[in-house]
Amino acid sequence: MVGGSGGSVTVGDLLLGRLHDLGVRHVFGVPGEFTMGFTGQVLAFDGIDWVGSSSELNACFSADGYARVAGLGVIVSQFGAGELSSMNAMATAIVESVPIVSIVIAPSTEVLREHAQIRHSLVDSFPDHWVQVARQVTVAQTSLTPECALREIDRVLAECWSQQRPVYIRIPADVARTSVPQPSRRLTRPEPISNSAQLDAFAVAAQRRLTDAERPALLVGNIPIRLGLGPAVAAFAAEHNWPVATQAPGRGLFDESDSRFVGVYSGSGSRDSIREVVEGADVLVCMGVTFFAWNGLFAVDRDPDRIINLERDSAEVAGTRFGPISMVAALGQLHEIAPRRASGWPSGEAPLIKPSDLARAGSRPISHERLWPALQGVLRPGDILAGEVGTSFFGLATMRLPAGVTVLMAPTWGAVGYVIPASFGAGVAMSERRVVSISGDGGLQMSSQEISRMLTFGQHPIIFVINNRGYASERAIGKEVGRGYGEEIPDWRYGDLPAVFAAEGTFAVHAARTEAELADILAGIEERPNRLTLVEVMVDPTDLPEGMPQWSRKAAAPQT
Amino acid sequence: MVGGSGGSVTVGDLLLGRLHDLGVRHVFGVPGEFTMGFTGQVLAFDGIDWVGSSSELNACFSADGYARVAGLGVIVSQFGAGELSSMNAMATAIVESVPIVSIVIAPSTEVLREHAQIRHSLVDSFPDHWVQVARQVTVAQTSLTPECALREIDRVLAECWSQQRPVYIRIPADVARTSVPQPSRRLTRPEPISNSAQLDAFAVAAQRRLTDAERPALLVGNIPIRLGLGPAVAAFAAEHNWPVATQAPGRGLFDESDSRFVGVYSGSGSRDSIREVVEGADVLVCMGVTFFAWNGLFAVDRDPDRIINLERDSAEVAGTRFGPISMVAALGQLHEIAPRRASGWPSGEAPLIKPSDLARAGSRPISHERLWPALQGVLRPGDILAGEVGTSFFGLATMRLPAGVTVLMAPTWGAVGYVIPASFGAGVAMSERRVVSISGDGGLQMSSQEISRMLTFGQHPIIFVINNRGYASERAIGKEVGRGYGEEIPDWRYGDLPAVFAAEGTFAVHAARTEAELADILAGIEERPNRLTLVEVMVDPTDLPEGMPQWSRKAAAPQT
Repeated sequence: MVGGSGGSVTVGDLLLGRLHDLGVRHVFGVPGEFTMGFTGQVLAFDGIDWVGSSSELNACFSADGYARVAGLGVIVSQFGAGELSSMNAMATAIVESVPIVSIVIAPSTEVLREHAQIRHSLVDSFPDHWVQVARQVTVAQTSLTPECALREIDRVLAECWSQQRPVYIRIPADVARTSVPQPSRRLTRPEPISNSAQLDAFAVAAQRRLTDAERPALLVGNIPIRLGLGPAVAAFAAEHNWPVATQAPGRGLFDESDSRFVGVYSGSGSRDSIREVVEGADVLVCMGVTFFAWNGLFAVDRDPDRIINLERDSAEVAGTRFGPISMVAALGQLHEIAPRRASGWPSGEAPLIKPSDLARAGSRPISHERLWPALQGVLRPGDILAGEVGTSFFGLATMRLPAGVTVLMAPTWGAVGYVIPASFGAGVAMSERRVVSISGDGGLQMSSQEISRMLTFGQHPIIFVINNRGYASERAIGKEVGRGYGEEIPDWRYGDLPAVFAAEGTFAVHAARTEAELADILAGIEERPNRLTLVEVMVDPTDLPEGMPQWSRKAAAPQT
Repeated sequence: MVGGSGGSVTVGDLLLGRLHDLGVRHVFGVPGEFTMGFTGQVLAFDGIDWVGSSSELNACFSADGYARVAGLGVIVSQFGAGELSSMNAMATAIVESVPIVSIVIAPSTEVLREHAQIRHSLVDSFPDHWVQVARQVTVAQTSLTPECALREIDRVLAECWSQQRPVYIRIPADVARTSVPQPSRRLTRPEPISNSAQLDAFAVAAQRRLTDAERPALLVGNIPIRLGLGPAVAAFAAEHNWPVATQAPGRGLFDESDSRFVGVYSGSGSRDSIREVVEGADVLVCMGVTFFAWNGLFAVDRDPDRIINLERDSAEVAGTRFGPISMVAALGQLHEIAPRRASGWPSGEAPLIKPSDLARAGSRPISHERLWPALQGVLRPGDILAGEVGTSFFGLATMRLPAGVTVLMAPTWGAVGYVIPASFGAGVAMSERRVVSISGDGGLQMSSQEISRMLTFGQHPIIFVINNRGYASERAIGKEVGRGYGEEIPDWRYGDLPAVFAAEGTFAVHAARTEAELADILAGIEERPNRLTLVEVMVDPTDLPEGMPQWSRKAAAPQT
């Protein structure tokens, strides 16, 4: 609903109304001296709640987690000293394709206009440094005046939604309280656009390429998740019997218990069974795939001869680009013309380790080889799963996720410290879904304070802290570089953290040093926990999950 | 010393050698997959130690604290996902005039040159987004190649030193290990430059202005601290009997127990006795003063008729600018020609409250009115004092600091969460000086993890946490705005934090709810504590220190 009454509405309420139209029910933020008027408008707005965060970086990661569940995330911060703290999370959002609206409350119009030497600025009478910073990490930016407010809000929010990437809205403090005419209609989500002639041409080209395909396969990235294409992809794979691999950012799109799921493709670091399907495909249909090189290891070979590449707004066959074509329209065309795959492919089933299997191993230390299959057994359909980069990234790649899991991970950008605040945000969006968070120890030390916000909010996530005494990725690369990596992190008593934040009874903590201890803890994990659960899992610092040794050697090469 | 042997040195060692020439003995940082080669070089370098931080934001705040004590601070971080987290602290450094070298380790030259779609980038084949971001918060930037390394390192470090502001050095991972010719001489600190004709012209103009001055005064900001002008200012004030006021960022330059010190000038928010000296001066000599408006309250009236304004590289009399003239040269000229002040000025002595005075008050709750004079009694000459913005800013403004105190505060930029990491950095620079840190509860929740680094490093700071259950500045403004401020922060058990980070015996914790409890704690504070001490001071959330109610009304005005 749009706030205000009669024929007018304040700019602040106008913006909140537009966000509400797009499904926003919570905004994350940290208040500042310029924000209080707008913060008051949020508090008074019927249908949107204010959710406080410990820092702007965490608030923005929480907005990321929220957006992946609710469709759109919002962070409110203060001009300069607030917004700059969110930069790493904003970069995460543009790279991982997450729609976040960054609302920055600036000093008053008069102060900006007079180029006054204001606080939270560079005191050089130029108030637009931070807009220039925002341009690097957002796809649209605006600074509101009463006159342009409606047009600019609608323009920028439309870009956010259709590009599924972050945008930046700056509001001078006084403008938020200024009245403007009430808009005559609600804001609707922009529909994807396709040019029908281009779509036809794409279909002709794709059909030519697919005619003789014997070993076609699908590789999916994160864009189809944002566009809600899970059911369409599932229908396609079932109808045509194509195997489906995902890139790490695309996990959760396709049911990983489906027999057509072959695994997580990570270039030459992948298991042979997955490489055979992806690299051996005579036609590989890529949907929102990121063709990125992670130290040369995770690149997808972009051989145009065998790739049909669907992007958000265009499609490419044998090196020819067609557009504008929406991904859903392109997939619809392929659905009409794709051949049924007759040939089989190697099974890549990951071994599941049950608590009882672990228990038999007794006092054996916990190894990555057995940890990740065991954690897989904890997951249930519909869980929200948050995973760290580093060790956890490689471990998670070996797991098969149940159907309907929403994954919170940022492996392309790779910021550490994402897991806890993103989990908090997702939990705010959907309190009825169970949240399982897998954090490294280094990541937890970056953003542990958001466990406090989880407890304040009454959330009941299950948090695994994989404690290998430091940044394992860096340790592994450092070992290859040959001089030691020099960065052990302090050895926290992670289990004592929740008691700093909240009263006894609102949380449970466990620690596992042996397989038997882990077995006991996992067996006791509830389907619907009624308190926050923190499980510390001690792993030998020198043990590495599958794929990580190869990666660290590649990463070290230019540095030696 | 410069590393390497014979006639060549690696680029990494060359940079470390140049930093060592400028007095750097520690670098702060967080490792990343690209940094490990360079991190190894730091570890192997004789004379510079690696100091790990919990996050890049904290590392950069620590480099800030280090720079204020040791002369130059260094942060090492990873391209993209690392460096962006430091942005708020880099902005702090450029605004508060702190010389920090941000060393960012990028992917290899080959990867950058091929514009590969790399991790920690926007995956858009443009690797320079973050250089564009760095341009907003640094005064010089470079991206090293072996060919340009020596020239560019020396150019950028010279800018850092002479401008006393942050700079940005990007090193592709492979370049750090490439050998280049050994430089033939050490890098020396650039000397300030003055044009003698301009200096003469300045002296003539200043003399004309000073001839009839009867009520001259000095107002100092932070630049003279960075330039080491404390003794020169003290000699000037003593010789000519001028009163001295400081802006908040200039504290620590002048001995506040000196009879000529009149207090902290904060515009119309200052005490009458201070306003009378500063605003009533017929000639006000400003040294590195920031003419900034903090919601209109803290502005210095820039009336050119009565101001002689000394900047780092220029000087201004009656609106005419002379330069290049170094601040030390300009002060030297003024020293020759300044009249002795015969007229007196009002005393602004702050009342000191002794622990015994507090103890008499027994169970009375702790008020700001009595807290800050009591804390003043804890300080000793030569302490390092770190102070938060917000409530603590106003409280600290009412205190008189002993001689030789180094102040860590960032009131112009105003980032919350600065105190703990900056204190850590200063403690690394000078372990023999006592560190007293005054943090708000909101600030502590942002960067509490650096207490862990303090404990790892064996530091013994005295940390006061002023617990008023939230962001008091915002609460005060929110009250004026009239809709409530909506941001209470979680109620942590702050005293339980150190036990999460380190073993019993390495810290002491105290909490004070009443004046008697505070008195007991303060009486027990040691001159040389042999462990980290954390004192939580509970203050009524609605109580505000002197000056803050007026400020909050001004700040609220544009938002209502």
